[in-house]
Amino acid sequence: MNNTRSASSSVSPATPDLLDNHRQSSCGEFSRLEKRMGPRNMTFHSKSMPRGSMFLDQEAFRSSHDKSSLQEEDKEITESLPADRFFDALQGPELETLKEKEKIVLPEDKTWPFLLRFPITSYGMCLGVSSQAIMWKTLATTNAERFLHLTQVVNHVLWWISLVLLLAVSITYLFKTIFFFQAVRREFKHPIRVNFFFAPLISVLFMALGIPHSITSNLPSMLWYFLMAPVLFLEMKIYGQWMSGGQRRLSKVANPTNHLAIIGNFAGALLGASMGLEEGPMFFFAVGLAYYLVLFVTLYQRLPTNETLPKELHPVFFLFVAAPAVASMAWTQLCGSFDLGSRFYYFISLFLYFSLVVRINFFRGFKFSLAWWAYTFPMTAVATATIKYSGEVTGLATQVLSIVMSGAATLMVIGVLVLTVMHAFVKCDLFPNDVAIAISAEQPKQKKWFKQLKNGSFGLKVSDKEDNQIDVEAPPLLNAHTV
Amino acid sequence: MNNTRSASSSVSPATPDLLDNHRQSSCGEFSRLEKRMGPRNMTFHSKSMPRGSMFLDQEAFRSSHDKSSLQEEDKEITESLPADRFFDALQGPELETLKEKEKIVLPEDKTWPFLLRFPITSYGMCLGVSSQAIMWKTLATTNAERFLHLTQVVNHVLWWISLVLLLAVSITYLFKTIFFFQAVRREFKHPIRVNFFFAPLISVLFMALGIPHSITSNLPSMLWYFLMAPVLFLEMKIYGQWMSGGQRRLSKVANPTNHLAIIGNFAGALLGASMGLEEGPMFFFAVGLAYYLVLFVTLYQRLPTNETLPKELHPVFFLFVAAPAVASMAWTQLCGSFDLGSRFYYFISLFLYFSLVVRINFFRGFKFSLAWWAYTFPMTAVATATIKYSGEVTGLATQVLSIVMSGAATLMVIGVLVLTVMHAFVKCDLFPNDVAIAISAEQPKQKKWFKQLKNGSFGLKVSDKEDNQIDVEAPPLLNAHTV
Amino acid sequence: MNNTRSASSSVSPATPDLLDNHRQSSCGEFSRLEKRMGPRNMTFHSKSMPRGSMFLDQEAFRSSHDKSSLQEEDKEITESLPADRFFDALQGPELETLKEKEKIVLPEDKTWPFLLRFPITSYGMCLGVSSQAIMWKTLATTNAERFLHLTQVVNHVLWWISLVLLLAVSITYLFKTIFFFQAVRREFKHPIRVNFFFAPLISVLFMALGIPHSITSNLPSMLWYFLMAPVLFLEMKIYGQWMSGGQRRLSKVANPTNHLAIIGNFAGALLGASMGLEEGPMFFFAVGLAYYLVLFVTLYQRLPTNETLPKELHPVFFLFVAAPAVASMAWTQLCGSFDLGSRFYYFISLFLYFSLVVRINFFRGFKFSLAWWAYTFPMTAVATATIKYSGEVTGLATQVLSIVMSGAATLMVIGVLVLTVMHAFVKCDLFPNDVAIAISAEQPKQKKWFKQLKNGSFGLKVSDKEDNQIDVEAPPLLNAHTV
Repeated sequence: MNNTRSASSSVSPATPDLLDNHRQSSCGEFSRLEKRMGPRNMTFHSKSMPRGSMFLDQEAFRSSHDKSSLQEEDKEITESLPADRFFDALQGPELETLKEKEKIVLPEDKTWPFLLRFPITSYGMCLGVSSQAIMWKTLATTNAERFLHLTQVVNHVLWWISLVLLLAVSITYLFKTIFFFQAVRREFKHPIRVNFFFAPLISVLFMALGIPHSITSNLPSMLWYFLMAPVLFLEMKIYGQWMSGGQRRLSKVANPTNHLAIIGNFAGALLGASMGLEEGPMFFFAVGLAYYLVLFVTLYQRLPTNETLPKELHPVFFLFVAAPAVASMAWTQLCGSFDLGSRFYYFISLFLYFSLVVRINFFRGFKFSLAWWAYTFPMTAVATATIKYSGEVTGLATQVLSIVMSGAATLMVIGVLVLTVMHAFVKCDLFPNDVAIAISAEQPKQKKWFKQLKNGSFGLKVSDKEDNQIDVEAPPLLNAHTV
Repeated sequence: MNNTRSASSSVSPATPDLLDNHRQSSCGEFSRLEKRMGPRNMTFHSKSMPRGSMFLDQEAFRSSHDKSSLQEEDKEITESLPADRFFDALQGPELETLKEKEKIVLPEDKTWPFLLRFPITSYGMCLGVSSQAIMWKTLATTNAERFLHLTQVVNHVLWWISLVLLLAVSITYLFKTIFFFQAVRREFKHPIRVNFFFAPLISVLFMALGIPHSITSNLPSMLWYFLMAPVLFLEMKIYGQWMSGGQRRLSKVANPTNHLAIIGNFAGALLGASMGLEEGPMFFFAVGLAYYLVLFVTLYQRLPTNETLPKELHPVFFLFVAAPAVASMAWTQLCGSFDLGSRFYYFISLFLYFSLVVRINFFRGFKFSLAWWAYTFPMTAVATATIKYSGEVTGLATQVLSIVMSGAATLMVIGVLVLTVMHAFVKCDLFPNDVAIAISAEQPKQKKWFKQLKNGSFGLKVSDKEDNQIDVEAPPLLNAHTV
Repeated sequence: MNNTRSASSSVSPATPDLLDNHRQSSCGEFSRLEKRMGPRNMTFHSKSMPRGSMFLDQEAFRSSHDKSSLQEEDKEITESLPADRFFDALQGPELETLKEKEKIVLPEDKTWPFLLRFPITSYGMCLGVSSQAIMWKTLATTNAERFLHLTQVVNHVLWWISLVLLLAVSITYLFKTIFFFQAVRREFKHPIRVNFFFAPLISVLFMALGIPHSITSNLPSMLWYFLMAPVLFLEMKIYGQWMSGGQRRLSKVANPTNHLAIIGNFAGALLGASMGLEEGPMFFFAVGLAYYLVLFVTLYQRLPTNETLPKELHPVFFLFVAAPAVASMAWTQLCGSFDLGSRFYYFISLFLYFSLVVRINFFRGFKFSLAWWAYTFPMTAVATATIKYSGEVTGLATQVLSIVMSGAATLMVIGVLVLTVMHAFVKCDLFPNDVAIAISAEQPKQKKWFKQLKNGSFGLKVSDKEDNQIDVEAPPLLNAHTV
């Protein structure tokens, strides 16, 4: 098998990919094919992928089968995956690692085309940098921090950096959507990744919040409605799945990245209220608070059905801090003052932050990945809220707290930025093969008993398709015992 | 068996039932018996039911048994059913359909007496019409809607209709309580139906809220205490079961109809506050909010133990909308203005409403049933809240929203009314045999292994009777394997 | 075996234990050993325990083994227990009763030394009496209750009693910490007991709240920071475990005693606000409210994984009442008036109180134990809140309610006090052998299949160590069937 593979990969990787400016090689055949066939009739892999070269092992397998089985596999590859498959085939805190015995539909031993390896989680970078722009804007405009004599230049510079970053990431992802729509679709079906589809929307909200005063101080309120419409539609989709989605119901998919589905509401309420709107922002705040409550309770309960919550704490837990911090700022803006409500959210955010900081040991030993960016903006958010708090409760303690937390957030962003650049350009492993989007639709053969059981041929009464997880664990030992 | 049955049903169905004015035939023997024996010594089926005619198959079975087994079965029929039996024997979103292999204690191939077929869910009609009366009252008295030039006549007419309806349903159900007390008791034990016992209480509250100004504007505050006492007692019972009731605990019985157990609190708070009371309404509002919070989180989590939540969305999900809508109006009345709190509940209600409306496809393909009435009043409630909101936030948008939502609610009520009348008088299938109250106390014989396991004869350590659901699924496949 | 044991217990119980002033005999050898060896090299049982006398059965067993197995057992005894072991080995509402087939590392047929039998739950006495001191202080200083002509003498007397009691209990427990540190550590690891470690901290807060006016009216605000620091650290530890602790996660350990982990926040907020502080108390209130919300929902759901919640209601359920009652008083103090927020918490507390009182039957048939003391202070707390409420809403009804509830609380405290004295000095069974801290680290041999399964030797894929409860129930019946 290896022979056929290596033979295929030696097929002229001549024409360089236009988008692949990160020195990834060996994907020439993709770009070549894409150019020849045009983007229209390209889908994820069943069509746009060079069958002859990349699916050689499958081809070999197929040759011993008839046409019907070939067609069946075709269908298998293009059909959308149920959420269960992601849970079955993947493991790790973000469902990114393939389980043993599972196979993927793309070759594991080659580097895939850059676009296929470019995940939606890349928007985490935009969140991190644009939230920094907001923090430095707040730092420069809060009276309590005036003694620092900061100018708005930092905000200005950061804002332009985040604009460039946002455009770069968006254009890249747009190309991915055009050329590999199936891959994007699979990311959208992925129980963890789907939450990151809020990240571009939140990034834009952050850009609007962090816009330097020298550019404009008054954004048109029409913009707000334009920005919040996709947030509203996406959360109707996601919250609806939580309640009614079977395999995607909340008791199953709950994990800290769900916070991203909430933060958009609070960021939107903050933006709207700072524009002078009233009813719309309150609407988003109310909806956000109601679902935040559901999420907070669910995450804290750590239900036995939450398969995605890792035992070891993980940077993703920092997302716990972001939602109440942004909520605090939004409420302050809605009410016009940092009142008891603002304090309520702010103190919860502060407590969660300290709770996580003292567990610093749990945040070691993890390999760097793009997702780390999503862990930087909560620190920035709570630092910004602290600056706002220090504007209300003036005193040495709050000023020191503001400076320490802002400094920690900035250092964290710089650190992650350096790591990102190093991994992107030096180690060239920032974008590894994204196995999460390439799992096969079928489970490996060893688990055939499972299907038989599901079909009731053994007399097992599985009342609800969603619940059979519980039953499913038993059979293997049964086999082990009786066979 | 069929022979004996058909023979029995041919026994002179001569004397018509007094209460059965809906053209149901073939239950003459019931009314005859009831008249002869008097209502006193009539219980559900063990006594008041004509053994010789309806339980012939059981009788045939009994003839081959001794006296003791006969007595045992007697006990079995009269004894109250544990909640588990309802879950075991029934299926469907409202536990109304009999599972395969399950048997019922009443003959399936005959139409039962009308009273036995008259369920507590009939009060849904009262909820739907009386809430419309409130809506039209609000519509006629809100300044923002004055341009419609509505008179209070619609409110007046609707209020009298709902009064007549409420009296009719109540008298009928009272007769059911008198003649078939066991059937009522079984409805009260039914995990879904029990929530509908709040419906008569809420209907009366709605009647008091919707009373036309021409009748009275000042209800005596004594009335409020009189109306809320049964609500308080019933919810102490139900909420207590949620926490401590074993088989009826919340993680097991949670489903959207539970909202009925909460809405009484908010409706009561609204009525009390509009009467000028303060402490009592606040008490009910606080308790309602605390339990609504628990319920909202639980329903959104969709725990794996919630067997009653259907995979497909169902009109019953509209009950999600009602509680926050009524809470919004109650809070407005308690605080004296449509403040941030009122907006909070109202916006949640609005978001839930839109979430459900966009899922319109999920609400198709369901057979009409009486329970649909309970799905109409949430629409009316949110429309009424919208009218109140448009009184606070005046503008074209809110006025249009009020009119559209009021119109939709009214159309829905008219639609369901037409369907009800059609099914009641044309198709004559509005009240089918109510199998939910006639399940046998014993599980069918096939499941005998279950009992053995429970008794520990196989060495299974079932730690908690309530948890054995999880264990129970395994054995059948074990048998299938080893046998 | 009994022979060797009784022989050992006859070994000269001559020197009386200094601390054992409750007439417990037959533990002379402990005190003798302790004196001879000094407290330094004494650990729980592996070292401080007289091997020759108390572990004779183990010794007998060991004699047939080699050195390595002996060392292994040594390690087994000193190593800290995982939370799972407590759930596996113990049962009952507070995990205090040993399950069948389980063995303990201390002899069951002897009375252990007093310190080993002195549990952390003893602080419940301090909670009960010191909360009474607060109640009588409130009763004497509220205008609405002035007609009772109460002096502050009762408060004064009760405060001194609770001070003495607190010192006595603390000194005793301090000795336990010094001499039997392993036992204290095991109490801290015990899923239920760990919550009682908040009790000493709350007791001190209650002492500060109930301090008579004649001693001081102005406590230094420094004291507050000093008192709240350990509360903050302990709750960071506990709440962190709820979220991330694997076996100690909330969905597993949730039970009414968790309320003790919340009440400290509200009591601290109340104390701080009454001292004139603002930000600190609000911080604790916010954090307390957020976690109370999580706890309230979790406890009401009664998840199937909550093994520790007893089916029968138990006095421990009264803890439900305490948290909202204290929260109501804290909020009143924070806002400066008994506003809608205060009413909200108070009414919830009142409803829960009534809900429990009407279930009086569930509180019968339980053996008296020290833990009952923890059930008295919720009654006192809600009575105190009622007095405060009657100060806001004056009238005959609230005055009667205040007096009735204060009377009930006082009677309950007196009753439990009498029972305690009787059990301590007459029946001498107040402190039975505390089996909860003496369970062996290993499960009994019958469950060896469990380990094999866990190690995967049967091919069982246990995805998450925390979830295997569900899987674990199946195998025994498998064995029973196939063997």
